[in-house]
Formats: sequence, C-alpha cells, structure tokens
Amino acid sequence: MPLTPDQQSQIDAERAAAASTRRPVSEGMEARLYTAHPVLDHGFVRVIDYMGGDAAIVQAARVSYGRGTRAVSDDAGLIRYLMRHWHSTPFEMCEAKFHVKLPIFVARQWIRHRTANVNEISARYSILDREFYIPAPEQLAAQARVNRQGRGDVLEGAEAQRVLDWLRDDATRAYDHYEAMLSQDGQQGLARELARMNLPANVYTQWYWKTDLHNLLGFLRLRADAHAQYEIRVYADVMAQITRDWVPAAWAAFEDYRMGGVQLSAKGVEVLKRRLRGEVVSQEDSGMSKGEWREFEGVWG
Amino acid sequence: MPLTPDQQSQIDAERAAAASTRRPVSEGMEARLYTAHPVLDHGFVRVIDYMGGDAAIVQAARVSYGRGTRAVSDDAGLIRYLMRHWHSTPFEMCEAKFHVKLPIFVARQWIRHRTANVNEISARYSILDREFYIPAPEQLAAQARVNRQGRGDVLEGAEAQRVLDWLRDDATRAYDHYEAMLSQDGQQGLARELARMNLPANVYTQWYWKTDLHNLLGFLRLRADAHAQYEIRVYADVMAQITRDWVPAAWAAFEDYRMGGVQLSAKGVEVLKRRLRGEVVSQEDSGMSKGEWREFEGVWG
Amino acid sequence: MPLTPDQQSQIDAERAAAASTRRPVSEGMEARLYTAHPVLDHGFVRVIDYMGGDAAIVQAARVSYGRGTRAVSDDAGLIRYLMRHWHSTPFEMCEAKFHVKLPIFVARQWIRHRTANVNEISARYSILDREFYIPAPEQLAAQARVNRQGRGDVLEGAEAQRVLDWLRDDATRAYDHYEAMLSQDGQQGLARELARMNLPANVYTQWYWKTDLHNLLGFLRLRADAHAQYEIRVYADVMAQITRDWVPAAWAAFEDYRMGGVQLSAKGVEVLKRRLRGEVVSQEDSGMSKGEWREFEGVWG
Amino acid sequence: MPLTPDQQSQIDAERAAAASTRRPVSEGMEARLYTAHPVLDHGFVRVIDYMGGDAAIVQAARVSYGRGTRAVSDDAGLIRYLMRHWHSTPFEMCEAKFHVKLPIFVARQWIRHRTANVNEISARYSILDREFYIPAPEQLAAQARVNRQGRGDVLEGAEAQRVLDWLRDDATRAYDHYEAMLSQDGQQGLARELARMNLPANVYTQWYWKTDLHNLLGFLRLRADAHAQYEIRVYADVMAQITRDWVPAAWAAFEDYRMGGVQLSAKGVEVLKRRLRGEVVSQEDSGMSKGEWREFEGVWG
Repeated sequence: MPLTPDQQSQIDAERAAAASTRRPVSEGMEARLYTAHPVLDHGFVRVIDYMGGDAAIVQAARVSYGRGTRAVSDDAGLIRYLMRHWHSTPFEMCEAKFHVKLPIFVARQWIRHRTANVNEISARYSILDREFYIPAPEQLAAQARVNRQGRGDVLEGAEAQRVLDWLRDDATRAYDHYEAMLSQDGQQGLARELARMNLPANVYTQWYWKTDLHNLLGFLRLRADAHAQYEIRVYADVMAQITRDWVPAAWAAFEDYRMGGVQLSAKGVEVLKRRLRGEVVSQEDSGMSKGEWREFEGVWG
Repeated sequence: MPLTPDQQSQIDAERAAAASTRRPVSEGMEARLYTAHPVLDHGFVRVIDYMGGDAAIVQAARVSYGRGTRAVSDDAGLIRYLMRHWHSTPFEMCEAKFHVKLPIFVARQWIRHRTANVNEISARYSILDREFYIPAPEQLAAQARVNRQGRGDVLEGAEAQRVLDWLRDDATRAYDHYEAMLSQDGQQGLARELARMNLPANVYTQWYWKTDLHNLLGFLRLRADAHAQYEIRVYADVMAQITRDWVPAAWAAFEDYRMGGVQLSAKGVEVLKRRLRGEVVSQEDSGMSKGEWREFEGVWG
Repeated sequence: MPLTPDQQSQIDAERAAAASTRRPVSEGMEARLYTAHPVLDHGFVRVIDYMGGDAAIVQAARVSYGRGTRAVSDDAGLIRYLMRHWHSTPFEMCEAKFHVKLPIFVARQWIRHRTANVNEISARYSILDREFYIPAPEQLAAQARVNRQGRGDVLEGAEAQRVLDWLRDDATRAYDHYEAMLSQDGQQGLARELARMNLPANVYTQWYWKTDLHNLLGFLRLRADAHAQYEIRVYADVMAQITRDWVPAAWAAFEDYRMGGVQLSAKGVEVLKRRLRGEVVSQEDSGMSKGEWREFEGVWG
Repeated sequence: MPLTPDQQSQIDAERAAAASTRRPVSEGMEARLYTAHPVLDHGFVRVIDYMGGDAAIVQAARVSYGRGTRAVSDDAGLIRYLMRHWHSTPFEMCEAKFHVKLPIFVARQWIRHRTANVNEISARYSILDREFYIPAPEQLAAQARVNRQGRGDVLEGAEAQRVLDWLRDDATRAYDHYEAMLSQDGQQGLARELARMNLPANVYTQWYWKTDLHNLLGFLRLRADAHAQYEIRVYADVMAQITRDWVPAAWAAFEDYRMGGVQLSAKGVEVLKRRLRGEVVSQEDSGMSKGEWREFEGVWG
C-alpha cells in the first residue's frame, strides 16, 4: 500500500472539493482525478490536472469560435482523419499532468521522452523514503536467448530465491548506510547530495509529469507496447486506461491506427501484393533480411 | 468591430455555460475566459482554456500530494525564490490556450517562439476574410535614424496620407483579385493554395496558440518590451494583463525580476562598484563599447 | 537566375577553400557544399554546413569509442533496424544547415516544423529585394473539386492570362509603393517594419535553417510527399537528393520504410488478412469510412 | 585511468586521421577532438564532432552568402551585441557532440537539459562495467546547515573513513551480486534489464550528448556555477574550456554577460540607485526578503 494516511486524506480532500468552471470538462477524467492507481509494489500514477478533451481537438482543427454544434459522430470522423494523416497539432491542444511514484531505473527510461514538463523530488534537498521495487516472483525472468534485450522464462527454485534475497538485502543495507551517513547524531552527517549515491536503481522516486496528448500517445505507443520493459509498461497501461476515459474518440483512433496498426515497408507492400495475386514468396525472394522476414511473418504468417 | 453576431453569440454561449470540476480554478482567469479582447483594428486575443495557477507552481516545486495548507504568503515567497534562481520547471506546470486574430506580419514574428502548440486556419483549405491592418495615424512612424530597427517621429501631412492611401488601395485591389481568381463563376477558379499568394502581409489570420507559463513569460518578456514592434506589443500587453489575473504571485515576481529587472555584465558590475566607491567612470575607462555604454547610461545615468 | 555576380563569387570562394579536419567527412555532402541549387523562379537551396554521416548513426547507436572497423553492410543493416523500430535518437546525431531563398507563403508552411534552428533576414532591419514568385503556366492549377485542399486541372486561355497579369501587376505595384514609402527623398520615409506589410505573400525571403537528420527526414516525409503543395515540394525534392548523397544508407532505409512504406490500421490489417484467405471484402463490410476505403483501395486495389 | 589500451588506440587512430573539407574549421576545437579529458575517478569528456564556430554565429545573424571579409573585431562586437540582447538563434547555428562517461546520479541531473540529443549505453542490452565513483577525501562534505541543498565542511576522521568504507563495500557487493545474478553458469541467469536495478547511483554510464551552442551555454551557466553540485560542475568546467577554445569570441561575451554578470530585480535597481545617491539602505527598507537581501549583499556588500 503506497500511501500514508496523511497522503490519503489529502487526496480525499482534493477529490471532495468541487468548483464551478467555464472550461470544458471531461467527465471520464473528472472521475479519475487525484486517485492514486497502484502500480508495482510501491508505485502509483494519478492524474492531477488536465485541459481539453475530444472536443478541443476538433475545435483546434477548425480554429472555431465556439464549442460547435456538430454531431459527436462528425467529431469522431474528423479525429480519425487527423490521426490517419499524421496531423499532430490538434492533439497537442489537450494537456494532462500526472503525479507518478516509480523506481529510478524506470524513471531513467521515462525521462528520455523529452517533450514533457517534469518536477522530480530532489535527493539533494530531501531524504528519499525507504521503498524499493522487488519484482513479484512471476516477474523474475531470465535473460532472453534470441533477443539481447528481453526476457525469457521465469526463474525458479534456488536461483529465484537467491535473486530475491540479494535484491532485498542489498537494498536494505544500502538504505541503512544511507541513513547512517546522513545522521547528525554524534557526527556531522554527510551531504544529502552525496549520500544518495549509495542508493540502488530500484529505490522509488516521484515526479510531476505533464505533457500534451500528442506526446502522451507517443509515449504510450512505445511504452504500452509488448517490447517495452514490463516495469514501465505497467505504468503505461494505467495511463492508457486513463487516456481512454479522457478522450474516447482520440483513443479509439489511436488504437486502430497506431496500437493495432502495422507499418509496412515498400518491400513488405510488394510481398503482400504478390501474395494477394496468389504467389508464394520466400524470405530469399522478398528482399528482406532474416530479421525483417521474421517480424513480417509474425504479423502475416 | 472584429466579431460577427454569430461569433459573438457563440462566445456568449461559451461564457454562459458552467460545469462542476475537481480541478483547481483561477477566478481571475475564469472571468477572462472566451471574451475577445480587441487588439489593433480587426484583431483580438481571447483565452479559451487554461490549466493550473499560482498553487500549481508551488505544488510542483514541492511534488505535493494535495493542495497544501500553507499560507498564501509562503507560496508567494517560494515563487519569488524560484523566479530569482531561474527555476523554470515549476512554471511549466501551468498552461494557457489563446485564440488570436492577427496580421500575418505579426504572426511571422510570433511563430518564432517555438515551444508552443499552434493550429492556424489554412489558406490552402479556407478563404481568408477581407480584413487588413491599417495603422492608426498616430502609429504611422518614420524609420528611426539611429537604430536601424525601430521607429522615429510620426509621419504627417501629405506623406502620411499617401502611405495610408497606398496601404488601403493595394490591399483592396489585392483582395479583389484574390476573390476574382478564386471565383468559379464562368471560369475554373484558381486553387486556394495559389490565390493566397496575392494577399499582402497585413491581411488577418487566426490561430489557436497554447503554451506553458514559463514560455508565455518568455514571450511576454521579449514582446511586451519597449523594443518590440508596436503591432505585436499590443497583443503582448493584453496577454500580460490576462496573465496577471491568472497567476498574480508569479506575475508579481516576473515584474520584479524580469520586466523591471536589469542584467548587468561583469563590466557593468565593476563600473557600478567603482561608482559606489565614489569614483567617476567614463566610457573610455569602462571597458564597454559606445553602444553598451549608451545602454548602461540609459539605466544608471 | 537567382544570384548576383557578387553572391556567385562569394560561393565560388567558399567552394574553392579547403582545410584539413579530423572530423568525419561525407564525400557526397562535400560535393554539394555551398552550391545554390535553383528552385522555382528565384529561389534556391544550398547546404552550408553539416556534421556526421551514416557512420555517426551507428556509432551513436553503439556509443563507440572509435570509428569502428565493421563492414559497411553491417552498418546498413543496423541503420535499417533502427529505422524499422522507430529509434530516432541515433539519427539525431547528424546535423545539416541550409541557406534557403523562398516565397513567404512557403516559409509560413515550412516554419511549422518547430525542431529546427532558424535565422531569417529581418524586414524590420533590411529592405527586401524586388523578387516575387510567379507560377509557371503549367503550375497554374484550378481548385480541386473533390479535395478541398488541392489542385485540379491547369488553367487555360484568358483565365490563365488574367491570373498571371494580376499576380505580376499587384506584386509590382505593391513593391513600387513599398519603395516609395521607404524613400527618404523629400520626405521622412516610413519605418521598414511598417512598410513591409504592403508586400504580398509571394515575395521572396531568405533564411538559414538547421536541423538534425531525424527531423530533416520528418520534414521530407511530409513535404516531399505527393499531398504537399507543389511550391514547397520542389524544395523538399532538392533536399531529398542532397540527403541521399549525404547519408546513403539512412536514405535507403527511409525510402523503404517511410516514403515507400504504408501505414495500415487494425481494420486494414484485418481486411488484408481476409483477402489473403480469398475473401472478397467491400467497404460496407470493412469497418472503414468511405474516405478511408478510397485511400485503402488507392494502395491495394 | 579510465581507458583501456584498446579504447586509447581507437582514440589515437581517430586523432591521427585527417581529411580535407570545405567546411569551416575551428583550430581550437580540432586540437581537442577525440581526446578523453579525465573527470572524477573514472569519468571523462571528449568532443567527438562539431559544426561551426564564431564565424557561423555572425554569418547566421547576417544570413550571408559567403564567409564575409569583415574584421574579426567587427565579428566580436556583433557577437557581444547578440549576447547582450538575448538573441539566441545565431548561437544555435553551432553544434557540438560529446562522449561522456559519468556516474548515474550525475547523468540524472544532466538529462534534465531537454534540448539535446542523447544516446546512452543501454543496461537492458549491455552489461555495465565495474566502475563506481568514490569521492576523494577532500570532497566528502557534510550537509550544509543554512542551505538545505549544499555542502558544508569536509568530514574528518572516523566518520569520513566510515563513509568511504560503506560506499566502496556496498558498491562492490552490489556489483558482485549483479554479476552473480547475470551469470549463466549452472543457472538461467537473470534478465539484464532486471539485474541492473541492484546497481547503485554511483555506477558509471556513458552517452553521446549533442547540443547547439546556445543550449550548451545554458547548460554551462547552470552547471559550471558555484551552486551546482561539485560532481557535475567538474564536467561543466572541462566543457567550458573546450567551448572557450572552440568559439573564443562567443565565450568572452558569455563570460562577461552571463557567468560574470548579475541579474538585478527592480527592487535591486532601486536600492543601488539610492546608494549611488549616497543613501544608506537597510533590508527592512529595501522591499526585499531576508534571503534576497543576503544574496544582494553577497554581490554589493
């Protein structure tokens, strides 16, 4: 359970407060606001503010004066058109802000998405909490054999136990020493900005992360993907559900054109056309490398 | 008067609608929402959405769970600290979206601020309205003599009249021909994407422009400045008033540290220190060029 | 002919100078350097500096110490892999800088690509040259009937002549008055920042434009595309040839995966799979809108 | 000593190779190219490519056709003018690419500078080296008492020894277990993307980091500053020397206007003007908070 009673009561207070606004409101997002959705063993994602919704996308595409009176189905059609033709700017007109608690090694992947605004708690200034990510047994995977960057079977028996013990013990000892170095009890106490270097990459940090819908979808496309590391994918999965509630029409278009879509190379188009004409095409005959052919067959058989 | 009755009634409908939200609300910004603030002869600025306020800045700086219960004066002090020490990320946590109608030559300056989201009406797709910026007589300034990039005295008499006549006649004729080229009455009609090339740089365009508070302040710092061209400064001035109503504490800090502040070079610091010790310093003796010295004396006498 | 003798001799001098460098060199790009490639009636594109090449992409992907000794074919394979899997950061490690002369209405489309560095000549500071884009007769196209944003048949006869006359006469008159307003002969002379508003959107401007290879390819993907307006596409076409000479392996991958590739939606994948199984699928039965189906059939028949 | 013989010989080979180029060359930067400048106990910075120099700044500001024949002193004056008036785009026309080896906790500060291109070695894909940052005894500072984010006196005696032992022992044990978890000797071997979570924040990573001169100066302004953490400042100090050799005129202007300059608030300007008139001004009387006054007095006495 990631929240202290004090934190939970602050969140409850935020959720209880309501105000009147002239701004457009997304009911799906209002229902999500402030709630901490648990992720991993100590992490969470919570939306803490948002701006716009499906209507804001179509208004921007039309540079409208008002909210418009067109049918919702027209709006969905326009949103599909914009997504299909890679019009990114109308999607940039919506904005969401998240409060995320996450292990540092996940934060290091996440921060590579540069078009976002970030405020992270500073370990120069504050003392981090004693919280580490320890994988659940079913996530303790071996190195993949084929793919240098992936997971294979789940570890079992003594090996699994050894890994869990080391992760837990090393993190505990590192944190004990972190505290002992910082202590000003009978000693000067090491500077926070130095002591933190002893903490492992599975210690939890927190940040506010704000981005526009276009870049959020770009993040989800890469991080809610099957090739993403499990520990970031679970964050992306929660954010995907939040996004679906926030902008249902944009989400449906995104699922169709991006998440469920397929990018074909010129060579891939050619092979499919030959197949549609009834030809049998082999890798040697396709112009593709073995790796490409494997990926191509993964989709088309 | 820049708005048609239909546009005004759409704006009135937007202002009349109210909804309940859990999001933080800025009363100063709610009062501004949707209203078209007139600028120049046919232009306007109107806020059409926003996110956050002064509280969002301090929450981000503290990575808080809730809205916090600290005194407003504490918040203002922290905001001043952040501004003084060039901490930009907490200010990025607020966002505002504007609908702006502006002459193309102003839009061309404005667009150079790259960290913003923009949707402009497309003259490939739509037909622009017959609206041009014609300067008011008191803005019809001569080329500055000292500064190659600035205005001198106001033109008078026959010269002023000639300029106004040319601006009006050329714009009118260009627009007449634009319409005539587009017409499909007894002819094919030129493509919109080509016909638009006949329109002068003082024709009005419109866009949605969205940015975060940090970048908005950066825009205002350059464009609400006395050295900015008058025709963009009047837009920045209106946006400055809106920003002041939106985030009063951030605005006060910005006025003190940026708009009213002065950047001294190392040489400038040295000269002031010598003056404080009672020394009389001349340009020759300052290490500054003549231009720098003139600017320095403009502030310090 | 876009260049004055003085400009041409400056370019010749740049091309004649050679220096020794430890940096990696792209022979294809060296051959292009500084030359003004003509575009439209008065425009040009010329590369004026560059950094990196195909090797820089693979070195960045491997975070290498040296230039590496791997075979060129290995490099090409890795570059194809990176392109196929949307790894953008290694392509960002190459940079190119262009000097471009282009009509203002083209510049207004171009500038929407925000991740670039730009220095444009300032019409607040300088006086623009008397040069306008007048379309060649075969480019004088009618408005498309189906597509609100496109061109139809070429205009002919009296209509074509009328359009050309108006474009030429209005531009000439506008420029005559621009000069007359600026003149300080017997009058004060209007400020440059004001006089420019009389110039039409087909007047030529110039800028330095610098971007990384990833963003350059993004620009080319949209602007060297058949749906782009002809007047910007001709610039993109020249830059595409330059890019091909600069980074042959990256260009080949880009042509295969982006320019010649096809993005299929989940619905499109489903339809193709049904077709591959021998099924006949109609639009009504596809889940696609009429517009989507038309685009789908455009590729797959 | 951070480099293996193989790495050193790759660097030597890069330095030995020379090619002819038409591009402008910076002799100061050529002398620096590829050399690994040692930083901290195992880190380094080395420039691996660059584009442009002082001349590129002035050419961009003038949108020139050629290299120009103006005097170097004219160029320096223009560069000073651009810096003084916050013209950032001409400085963006120069680009530099660095290869950096640095502890993860330093990398986490560094990456917050978003306008840069980065390729980091991936610990999902590769196995990190057994190298940790252990502070030199004279850098083992206590937490500052006044400033929550800073260092006080150097630790001494038993406390210092304890800290060094813990840092070394915990890092060693964490790395031993990292290796043991990865091992495929008699066991499956944990996935690399999981094993890395056991490594502490002082383990070294490497990246290619590329940015333009404007953003590089922004980085140096914050990170070569006395308030920056020592462990990032030493990197910034080396890069500052490299930058000085690369663009001497821009660097001189930067030192005068930014590094050695002072930002005065409106209140600060007012206080100085009163002092120049001979008045004695106290904090109570200044309108400044105690913190601001302390900082003000730090400069002006």
